[in-house]
Amino acid sequence: MIGIFDSGIGGLTVARALMDQLPDYDIIYFGDTARTPYGSKSPETVVNYSIQDTEFLLKKGARLVIMACNTASSVAFDKVSEKFNYPLFEVITPAVKLSVKKSEKKRIGVIGTRATINSGAYEKKIKKISSDSRVYSMACPLLVPIVEEGWLKKPETKMIIKKYLHPLKTKQVDTLILGCTHYPLLKNIIQKKIGKRVNIIDSSLSTAEDVKKFLQKNPEIDSEMSKKGKAVFFVSDSTPQFEKTAKVALKKNISLKHVKI
Amino acid sequence: MIGIFDSGIGGLTVARALMDQLPDYDIIYFGDTARTPYGSKSPETVVNYSIQDTEFLLKKGARLVIMACNTASSVAFDKVSEKFNYPLFEVITPAVKLSVKKSEKKRIGVIGTRATINSGAYEKKIKKISSDSRVYSMACPLLVPIVEEGWLKKPETKMIIKKYLHPLKTKQVDTLILGCTHYPLLKNIIQKKIGKRVNIIDSSLSTAEDVKKFLQKNPEIDSEMSKKGKAVFFVSDSTPQFEKTAKVALKKNISLKHVKI
Repeated sequence: MIGIFDSGIGGLTVARALMDQLPDYDIIYFGDTARTPYGSKSPETVVNYSIQDTEFLLKKGARLVIMACNTASSVAFDKVSEKFNYPLFEVITPAVKLSVKKSEKKRIGVIGTRATINSGAYEKKIKKISSDSRVYSMACPLLVPIVEEGWLKKPETKMIIKKYLHPLKTKQVDTLILGCTHYPLLKNIIQKKIGKRVNIIDSSLSTAEDVKKFLQKNPEIDSEMSKKGKAVFFVSDSTPQFEKTAKVALKKNISLKHVKI
Repeated sequence: MIGIFDSGIGGLTVARALMDQLPDYDIIYFGDTARTPYGSKSPETVVNYSIQDTEFLLKKGARLVIMACNTASSVAFDKVSEKFNYPLFEVITPAVKLSVKKSEKKRIGVIGTRATINSGAYEKKIKKISSDSRVYSMACPLLVPIVEEGWLKKPETKMIIKKYLHPLKTKQVDTLILGCTHYPLLKNIIQKKIGKRVNIIDSSLSTAEDVKKFLQKNPEIDSEMSKKGKAVFFVSDSTPQFEKTAKVALKKNISLKHVKI
């Protein structure tokens, strides 16, 4: 099975993209809703949690794991990678590759949680493949709670997004990476506030494409994946609010199974 | 020692009030920053966490424990109370008693996290001692992240608070309970938006007064409390942002000790 974990329910946007691109593949999802969010926590804590999340998915039968959380991808990928002997994907590299391809002016904006932005992960990866690109980053810590609150179209949300994006707009970025799996749910407002000519890079889509290509190139791993078109969703805590946002992110009704971790 | 725990650093407003009213008493504080916030999580999860937090404080020598978290107080007090044989305080009852005393029109507003408001804890307690009081409640889930973000005076913050308080203003409450330990840090804006004639009840102050009275009435317990004017602060995760907000809440420089729980 393909395993996906996230600090909460935002990673369901990656599950959604994967289900669209690889509809036959079985998916197991774990959202760590009992300890969400990761984005405000220290790298050490995020590494510990990510290792536990990965262990849970492997125990449940995952043979390939996607860290569908930008915070975990930014600060925990190397440590988790060292520890486990299965293909591990993060959500940053696919978005970085696409952004460099799309940006004509080589002025790339990145928005994410405080932990993601502080890690400098996007900037380092962009500079590695395109050293003359300029990268402008902005931590947007209120956007995750706004999505969890379901304030997807409120005037306050528009005002807050405008405020966060203003410095990036001033820097005239032509490409903007949504460096958090929650942000695709605010894509329309973000597009409006940053300008309609700016390319918006949604890391959930790029990640799903990357996993698809990897499986095509690695038939021996692909053959280990069960393909009954099933998806199961585990969470470490369950509330009506989580259920509601999960439906919005996944664009369908699902039942979340509660497990202790 | 007097033990205090909170889901994070908001409970430091209670520690502050206690240090002002009982300056000689030794205090041990635990902020569960690795799993913060509690307010969006299920009652079952909040009960589990509160039991672990209390165990930690007792192991470290606390002989009286204050749950300085409204969410924990709302959904976990009875369960934690049953389990441990030490005086346990929550932050709801003191605020309820004071609000009933202050409200002439018997129209009381309550703001808090989603978990606190959904629990109905304030409403039940108010009705118990003043059955003809009307209680109007409003969940304000964005206010905790706003405080943690340090957005204490931003225009967006004012707009969001105005939006949250509007229904309570329409109901003409004459008293408003700040049902979350983070909210005292937004007291000025809240006072402005709800109206300057409305009594604002800060549960951190009322709780500290209650503990003080309890110790005066129970000299055998009071005699067990060490009184060297010392305070130690433990957190389950430590980041620069937490440190910064801790200083604002406590109005002094402190060092947070990191422990795993």
